[in-house]
Amino acid sequence: MRIISGMRPTGKLHLGHYYGVIKSWIELQEKEETFFFIADWHALTTSYKDVNELEKNIKELMVDWLSLGLDPKKSVLFRQSHVKQHAELYLLLGMITPKSWLEWNPTYKDMKYNLLKIQDLEIQFRGGIRDAVRQFINMLPYKVEDFEGFEEHLMDSLAENLVEALFNGLIEKEMLQKINVSKREFYETDTYGFLGYPVLQSADILIYKAEGVPVGEDQLPHIEMTREIARRFNHLYGNTFPEPKALLTETPKIPGTDGRKMSKSYGNAIFFSDENKEIEEKILKMFTDPQKLRKNDPGRPDICAVFTYHKIMNPNKDEVEEIYRDCKEGKLGCVECKRKLLPHVISVIEPVRERRKTIAKDIGTIHDVFEEGSKKAREIAERTMEEVREKMHIK
Amino acid sequence: MRIISGMRPTGKLHLGHYYGVIKSWIELQEKEETFFFIADWHALTTSYKDVNELEKNIKELMVDWLSLGLDPKKSVLFRQSHVKQHAELYLLLGMITPKSWLEWNPTYKDMKYNLLKIQDLEIQFRGGIRDAVRQFINMLPYKVEDFEGFEEHLMDSLAENLVEALFNGLIEKEMLQKINVSKREFYETDTYGFLGYPVLQSADILIYKAEGVPVGEDQLPHIEMTREIARRFNHLYGNTFPEPKALLTETPKIPGTDGRKMSKSYGNAIFFSDENKEIEEKILKMFTDPQKLRKNDPGRPDICAVFTYHKIMNPNKDEVEEIYRDCKEGKLGCVECKRKLLPHVISVIEPVRERRKTIAKDIGTIHDVFEEGSKKAREIAERTMEEVREKMHIK
Repeated sequence: MRIISGMRPTGKLHLGHYYGVIKSWIELQEKEETFFFIADWHALTTSYKDVNELEKNIKELMVDWLSLGLDPKKSVLFRQSHVKQHAELYLLLGMITPKSWLEWNPTYKDMKYNLLKIQDLEIQFRGGIRDAVRQFINMLPYKVEDFEGFEEHLMDSLAENLVEALFNGLIEKEMLQKINVSKREFYETDTYGFLGYPVLQSADILIYKAEGVPVGEDQLPHIEMTREIARRFNHLYGNTFPEPKALLTETPKIPGTDGRKMSKSYGNAIFFSDENKEIEEKILKMFTDPQKLRKNDPGRPDICAVFTYHKIMNPNKDEVEEIYRDCKEGKLGCVECKRKLLPHVISVIEPVRERRKTIAKDIGTIHDVFEEGSKKAREIAERTMEEVREKMHIK
Repeated sequence: MRIISGMRPTGKLHLGHYYGVIKSWIELQEKEETFFFIADWHALTTSYKDVNELEKNIKELMVDWLSLGLDPKKSVLFRQSHVKQHAELYLLLGMITPKSWLEWNPTYKDMKYNLLKIQDLEIQFRGGIRDAVRQFINMLPYKVEDFEGFEEHLMDSLAENLVEALFNGLIEKEMLQKINVSKREFYETDTYGFLGYPVLQSADILIYKAEGVPVGEDQLPHIEMTREIARRFNHLYGNTFPEPKALLTETPKIPGTDGRKMSKSYGNAIFFSDENKEIEEKILKMFTDPQKLRKNDPGRPDICAVFTYHKIMNPNKDEVEEIYRDCKEGKLGCVECKRKLLPHVISVIEPVRERRKTIAKDIGTIHDVFEEGSKKAREIAERTMEEVREKMHIK
């Protein structure tokens, strides 16, 4: 099966990236035909203003991938922006993709609103206007066929319009202060490229006629849209693209050191570039069960981040069971438990970190590796484009 | 001054294209550095479903351009889709272009609504809801800072929402029958590519760092958007693109044979491929002043399409003055006036038509001409892209 997936260059990789994504990629490259790309154009959909770090982040990602075990002999490793055919297919697929598909895409609205922290604001507006909308509908001189459907339709669009009116200074500004988002930010986040994110992603996948895409659950709507765009193309111009399947990877969720999702921006991540001293500090500061204050208090390993790490990284399963039991019975203190964990985290990080150092020294070779992969990708992508141009009569 | 302009391949050229556009291009190529391209990707923004004629239309346009006097020694003549760099710049410019710029672009809304023939419907909705909107605003639990502005904002967006609700079957369908547009057509016309038309146009212009763009008045908002996108890029990444100026070409408006705008779809066009017999038939059937029923009735040449043709195509200015006088005084009948016109129309069409025939025989050479132009265009476009990638840190 031909498989493709990509990753945005956002900085150095941490344990969350490895257990959530890269580990399953490494397994896949052993048995499938795999393509993995650095999604540098995608990085621009949300952070086009801040490109100074981009080239550096791309290099870090290349070094991390190779150090973690992605193997250019087994996978085609390449940079999206070095295969210009993606841009051409993005342009062509955009011509056949109804704008409404993109606007109704739940992740588009979620991402936009999360980025702008205005979800609460919209909910607030919805709460304040239901009665007014009902009365409004009753005042209309048109016959309403589906009152409830119409009410929902208007509620949605009016809440959006009120947010817009607020940013345009048409209604009171008090709420804006609460959420600390500027008018400028509001309009500048929502770009044409941001809306078209799923179109570019569809081009990334379809141009290789990939059959499988390993994704997390949050990406399912995008894969569904890729399938819809493929169907639409096939319907309009003749059978061309297979409909790719989402390969939902069942990965253990590894929390950050504070128990939340591991993320660079939360400051709770353990990176593959961390030295042993840094790892030790981070592990010893980890959050555990807040009810276990003293060594002899019984703990709840099921809600403890340290125990989750043991489950994932400690290869001695007997010891893991023992830790579970002793923690619950108040026989094991958190500091000791962390000390037991430390060598296992180090043994995951250390070899990668040392490879990182060796690999990073020869940046020329790394670029060659990715250029070689990009060349292979270009050849396949160009073959698909020849077929696409032929079918669209635009040779 | 470097100048660029493009034309969609929609079929054979007629007198309207020549006097409205091509004639001024031919003048420009004598004194400026000119780039003219066949906008084949743009053709997809509105007619992506109907691509069977596309390749044929492109060939017709190539033959017409060369026959009319666009000269590959003086102008760079090329095909947009053969310079892939346009697609890459379109992708990158899309990342920095707020979606609201595109949605507020008056020509976007006009084109969308004209294509769907639903402008009247929207006006109807606006007419019916002003009072309801006023009352709705009064019911809101928020302080309104700018009542009139808010009212307009809601009127606009509600009219759009009502159109959408109508297509979704939420309100009565009677109005839909009047305008004969299907729900499917409504959603499928409004594609991502259609919305992004001005972004692609900006890429077409900026990639050559063009300083002037000959356009008709309807295209002014698009050139203004190109200037805004250029400013935004320069502001974000450093000075790169000159802001192109619109060169408003003062061209005589040549009407169709029925007095309306000349257009293939109205069936009122005289083509450069027309044989003399066809031209004669078309001229003799032309609409004249409807009040001049008999030869001796006084006519109004100022509102007569035949006289407009005389003004544009009859090189004998004394005769034109005489026709004007005689028509007004009822001394010249319409048939005779058309007979006087015929040789002048033929002498415009005939040499072009005969060149068409010779040129069309050697389609290989024509393709070479455009491929040679595309090669020159690619070299310049690639130089710009190198600079763009460098500035966006995505080399």
